[in-house]
Amino acid sequence: MEKLDEKKDRIIEIRRYLHEHPELSFQEEQTAKYIADFYKDVPVDSVETNFGGERGIVVTIKGAKPGKTIAIRADFDALPIKEETGLPFASKNEGVMHACGHDGHTAYMLILAESLAEMKDQLSGSIRVIHQPAEETPPGGAIGMIKAGVLDGVDAILGIHVMSNMKTGNIYYRSGNTQTGRSYFKLVVQGKGGHGSSPHLANDAIVAASSFVMNLQTIVSRRINPFDTASITIGNFDGKGSFNVIKDAVTVEGDVRSMSPETREIIEEGVRGFAEGLETSFKVKSIFEFENDYPVLYNDPDVTQQVRQALEQATIPEVEAVLETPPQPPSEDFAYYLEKVPGCFFYVGAEPDTGEAYPHHHPKFNINEKSLIISAKAMAAVVASFCGGSES
Amino acid sequence: MEKLDEKKDRIIEIRRYLHEHPELSFQEEQTAKYIADFYKDVPVDSVETNFGGERGIVVTIKGAKPGKTIAIRADFDALPIKEETGLPFASKNEGVMHACGHDGHTAYMLILAESLAEMKDQLSGSIRVIHQPAEETPPGGAIGMIKAGVLDGVDAILGIHVMSNMKTGNIYYRSGNTQTGRSYFKLVVQGKGGHGSSPHLANDAIVAASSFVMNLQTIVSRRINPFDTASITIGNFDGKGSFNVIKDAVTVEGDVRSMSPETREIIEEGVRGFAEGLETSFKVKSIFEFENDYPVLYNDPDVTQQVRQALEQATIPEVEAVLETPPQPPSEDFAYYLEKVPGCFFYVGAEPDTGEAYPHHHPKFNINEKSLIISAKAMAAVVASFCGGSES
Amino acid sequence: MEKLDEKKDRIIEIRRYLHEHPELSFQEEQTAKYIADFYKDVPVDSVETNFGGERGIVVTIKGAKPGKTIAIRADFDALPIKEETGLPFASKNEGVMHACGHDGHTAYMLILAESLAEMKDQLSGSIRVIHQPAEETPPGGAIGMIKAGVLDGVDAILGIHVMSNMKTGNIYYRSGNTQTGRSYFKLVVQGKGGHGSSPHLANDAIVAASSFVMNLQTIVSRRINPFDTASITIGNFDGKGSFNVIKDAVTVEGDVRSMSPETREIIEEGVRGFAEGLETSFKVKSIFEFENDYPVLYNDPDVTQQVRQALEQATIPEVEAVLETPPQPPSEDFAYYLEKVPGCFFYVGAEPDTGEAYPHHHPKFNINEKSLIISAKAMAAVVASFCGGSES
Amino acid sequence: MEKLDEKKDRIIEIRRYLHEHPELSFQEEQTAKYIADFYKDVPVDSVETNFGGERGIVVTIKGAKPGKTIAIRADFDALPIKEETGLPFASKNEGVMHACGHDGHTAYMLILAESLAEMKDQLSGSIRVIHQPAEETPPGGAIGMIKAGVLDGVDAILGIHVMSNMKTGNIYYRSGNTQTGRSYFKLVVQGKGGHGSSPHLANDAIVAASSFVMNLQTIVSRRINPFDTASITIGNFDGKGSFNVIKDAVTVEGDVRSMSPETREIIEEGVRGFAEGLETSFKVKSIFEFENDYPVLYNDPDVTQQVRQALEQATIPEVEAVLETPPQPPSEDFAYYLEKVPGCFFYVGAEPDTGEAYPHHHPKFNINEKSLIISAKAMAAVVASFCGGSES
Repeated sequence: MEKLDEKKDRIIEIRRYLHEHPELSFQEEQTAKYIADFYKDVPVDSVETNFGGERGIVVTIKGAKPGKTIAIRADFDALPIKEETGLPFASKNEGVMHACGHDGHTAYMLILAESLAEMKDQLSGSIRVIHQPAEETPPGGAIGMIKAGVLDGVDAILGIHVMSNMKTGNIYYRSGNTQTGRSYFKLVVQGKGGHGSSPHLANDAIVAASSFVMNLQTIVSRRINPFDTASITIGNFDGKGSFNVIKDAVTVEGDVRSMSPETREIIEEGVRGFAEGLETSFKVKSIFEFENDYPVLYNDPDVTQQVRQALEQATIPEVEAVLETPPQPPSEDFAYYLEKVPGCFFYVGAEPDTGEAYPHHHPKFNINEKSLIISAKAMAAVVASFCGGSES
Repeated sequence: MEKLDEKKDRIIEIRRYLHEHPELSFQEEQTAKYIADFYKDVPVDSVETNFGGERGIVVTIKGAKPGKTIAIRADFDALPIKEETGLPFASKNEGVMHACGHDGHTAYMLILAESLAEMKDQLSGSIRVIHQPAEETPPGGAIGMIKAGVLDGVDAILGIHVMSNMKTGNIYYRSGNTQTGRSYFKLVVQGKGGHGSSPHLANDAIVAASSFVMNLQTIVSRRINPFDTASITIGNFDGKGSFNVIKDAVTVEGDVRSMSPETREIIEEGVRGFAEGLETSFKVKSIFEFENDYPVLYNDPDVTQQVRQALEQATIPEVEAVLETPPQPPSEDFAYYLEKVPGCFFYVGAEPDTGEAYPHHHPKFNINEKSLIISAKAMAAVVASFCGGSES
Repeated sequence: MEKLDEKKDRIIEIRRYLHEHPELSFQEEQTAKYIADFYKDVPVDSVETNFGGERGIVVTIKGAKPGKTIAIRADFDALPIKEETGLPFASKNEGVMHACGHDGHTAYMLILAESLAEMKDQLSGSIRVIHQPAEETPPGGAIGMIKAGVLDGVDAILGIHVMSNMKTGNIYYRSGNTQTGRSYFKLVVQGKGGHGSSPHLANDAIVAASSFVMNLQTIVSRRINPFDTASITIGNFDGKGSFNVIKDAVTVEGDVRSMSPETREIIEEGVRGFAEGLETSFKVKSIFEFENDYPVLYNDPDVTQQVRQALEQATIPEVEAVLETPPQPPSEDFAYYLEKVPGCFFYVGAEPDTGEAYPHHHPKFNINEKSLIISAKAMAAVVASFCGGSES
Repeated sequence: MEKLDEKKDRIIEIRRYLHEHPELSFQEEQTAKYIADFYKDVPVDSVETNFGGERGIVVTIKGAKPGKTIAIRADFDALPIKEETGLPFASKNEGVMHACGHDGHTAYMLILAESLAEMKDQLSGSIRVIHQPAEETPPGGAIGMIKAGVLDGVDAILGIHVMSNMKTGNIYYRSGNTQTGRSYFKLVVQGKGGHGSSPHLANDAIVAASSFVMNLQTIVSRRINPFDTASITIGNFDGKGSFNVIKDAVTVEGDVRSMSPETREIIEEGVRGFAEGLETSFKVKSIFEFENDYPVLYNDPDVTQQVRQALEQATIPEVEAVLETPPQPPSEDFAYYLEKVPGCFFYVGAEPDTGEAYPHHHPKFNINEKSLIISAKAMAAVVASFCGGSES
């Protein structure tokens, strides 16, 4: 902890550098290089780059004593958003922005890894640091790293997200289903074009697609248990055309959130039914696809219990409270790791001191940098509880 | 014509008697008896009763000279309406009313037939007077009479409807498609009942049926040529239930109007598609039936031309004008006769002198009784033009 | 407890008698008389009948020592359901049935009250037994009894519901929001009648009401937090009419469930908006009313904690487990009491031994009569924990 | 007529030149110059260019004898369509095409004007040749020319459209309402954007706009007389967005066709009502505009009668029949002239000899060039009937 306190400014420095140089998912070349370079003089046991074929970096720190293998993960990709923060270290990569805090995740993780490496003789077991690319864009970077074996031999996995909408000084956890699973669907309604004055010679795809949108609402309103969670959004209704020409085809794309695979299946069956029903109803052709991506994020109750206790007992001075959080709406590809090994993904409050918190993915999003040292210390405390030794 | 002038009061007398004693379609026992009795002392050549098995009466009047066989038709059923006219001769049959003028049709026809019979030595050819029951209720009385041979050997058929919404003194004709054809459909949407607090255990039939109603609108709005005529009405949406119980099944019944068999087919295909589409879309069971009843009423252009000329040349003093009318929205089972033999169905204005005209089928409906002598004379003139001799 | 064991058969006897003689909400004359008569020779301190003006009965049992005033409530009305259980003691009141277990509630409560009265010298404080009519039908019987002062001086209130869908031998509790609140709404859509062939002269109320039903779905699907609970059901869509007559007016009635007053308000605002929007959209007249009835049932966390501990420590031989239950979909007018004083409403499993459990309000609904002695003992244990003395 | 026969090839030559050099509405610089140049050596009485401020050209030919002033109009703009005919004289202006026959209109009119000028001593009255730009794009070129006085003193106006879907050799006319009037509307539905996992924090504009589209169908299906003509098309539904982002705003644009100003008003009131109703129903902001452009094209019955007779009596060898046509779906800004002065717009069949007719505005549209000499002779015959002299 003392070690970390000393390195506090370096965390912020790194975070600001990364913030200034954001890169999109699956294109994080410079960021990956920066991370790999960081470890050059750090006494870690191994640094594997381009892990999973997509710029993932896996760092191994072996404790002096035998013990468990614990994975800790930080993501490092940015978003296609034009930054409007006006910060002195605002993005220099026009149209790309770290608007979700992954710059902070990487910054605290590098310094934490360095600190752990420096004191590895006091640790039991092994720590695997996962620097993951492409969290923001399905299929996500986690899948590739898992396929490449990043979880082989891992006993538990841990992750942190800094949250601009949670109070700085608080840490939040939840056991069980914690973040939504997500699916994507796309429907092309193929009708027949024609002239506005002769609708009978055409088949209006906009009308059929509008009926689809209305019918779709009944899945959430009538087929889902009111005590369950589900959301279906049509975010894209592409019926652009000339006002007096009957549209031949419309593309609609949608987003599905749920908190269980069963609900996801009810939704898929429902959406598919309404898509296919258009063929009989409106005599159009429906070309439909439905894809599950990030699963429901499930925190293992035992690991979560241990995380909670470790955080409560660590008495980190910057931490005011360790609280249970309600489920979180977004989806997160950390959920893939949790399908394979037990673990816990928890939240560090990062509300700016001004109180003016912009939501994640907003052009004015910013985090409270105090959350970074908290993240480092919190993860250190948790790792310590798994890897036996004392972290100070 | 003179003969008819003398009998003017008797027409009104008969009309009022019939108005006072209305009977529903397919139940016109006393009315049929009254008509048959009328002919007892009239020198017609034959009176066939219970023609077609449903109280139809066919009267034959043979002219002295050979010639064409012309059929003239009057209907005699009433409606399930509670009369509110306050007329001294208002219905004595509670809940049943001559609210469409069929009392007048029968009255003028009886006196016209009597007059024609009295002067049959001046006529060429043969006149077949068709007193038809059950015009108001599908399948209608015409079908049975046609099956029983009422049109055998008939060269042309003629009919009149008195119209409370057309100016008294005017006669109206139209060539070609003149009144709408009609179809009926019924859809039972079978879902699954349940408790309002647990929609996911039920399948809400009211929601599925509402979607059907909305989708149905697109048939007229998008599939029918804007220059064509079509109407689809859901007149019955029976989703009666308890407010907090999810409805298991809903029955909807609808009415279809069109001016051509082709349009009717587009509509049937469309309604059927939306009904069947519910099974895929809403996972309900759709039990659907569609039945065509009265066809489009098609006036033969040649016969109509002859009717028009006969009326124009007859110079009936009560007639101010002979005018073309736009198509008429209602359906009429006279259309069945016109599918078999050429003919013309035309209109005699019967707006009350007060100017206060209630629409047909209204509890306060009434006709201008002047229209009855006009009907008699007009039909006499038309018959004369076909059956050679002079009617005066 | 021993006392109760001795009286086990009498509980069943009473339950069967009540089951045979069910009465509808607000009409429970004989049942109320039966309850009052029961207390004639029981050493209770007072029996007030017709409490709240609607046949409620309030019985007071004063302990020897001073202490808290605890209310325990059992409801006694039945449902308008035709019984199909084939039980030897099936309803003799055609079309009325105890299909929710209130017969059992009253039976156990009478015997429990008798037992408590017999040992009141061992009790501290005072016990108020509330026999409540009309739980099944809004506005419910609780409101009137509260207005008449039934909760005056009460420190806590307790109630039990036997549940055919919960395992016999288990008792279930939940802290906080536990059963849904309910609202009712009614919309009369006033259009203009007309003939199916002339829609332009009418204003079709069925179409406007169908659009309302479809739009309504978007409240649950788009305006409610996916992690929150809400259900809106149109249980009545009364658009009965003749297939070819455009409907002038339609009545729809709906049911609303939610787990918080805030959600209820979002829903009311939403439904009202769609109702009023019809006036601008469809040029109809919307006559709308929205009424909240039973509130969300909120179990006080402290009382619930005490109930749980009392049940766990009582070691009732028939009880296998005391478990937390998820929220329950139905609404319950016990919630009104809980708005005024802290308390807890908990559940006693009553699944038939056959395993064949029909849901509450089903014509074949039945309870496992073992649940009655469990209810008596469970409530005894809870009362004892509040009223100091020992119950055996 | 003989004169025209001699010039037949020049008509085709001019048409092909124009076809090769199409220009968009309101940008027809070279075409206007070409037309003006044509008249340089033609003995017309005046050539006014840039008439109405938009490149219109008005040519006056005065007959030797006094008489009526007759206007004859040809339009000369092209369309934003990429030609796919493969013709040797296909468009050299990429993305612009004479896909409606205006090249032919101008070609026959130039040669006809030259011929009339050459024989003006045989004519009575005055002929005003109107070369009109911008027929294809509202507000259209006619309005400006009318404002600039092109109809001052004009007794009647005449126009021809060549029709690829009508048989070559036939000429078609219609009295009264002949082509639809057109309106345009635009609705911006302003909701509130948000993330797909939190719909309650947003207000989904795509759902509100879809409801609008569905409700809109009821105008044609329920508010328009089934014997009347109306069409409403949403040709643009611009809800393009990211699949998982709730759309903040949607723009829809629509096209309205009708055959009377009364119907147009019913539609405008209806569309406006559904647009405004969204504000109450969906709590969005509706920004709505509705604009009438081309009116219903009304052919004066007397002028049309004279046109018909002139055509029938002219015995043009290439003309097989002069027939009545049903109303035509498209709109045409010639209708503006007809609001001011009596006139007739009629049709010359131009189906290709191959029988393979592509509709107007199709990338493969082509006309039968035989229709051009027919147009010239037909218009000559009609002009002759108005301007006294003989045309041969």
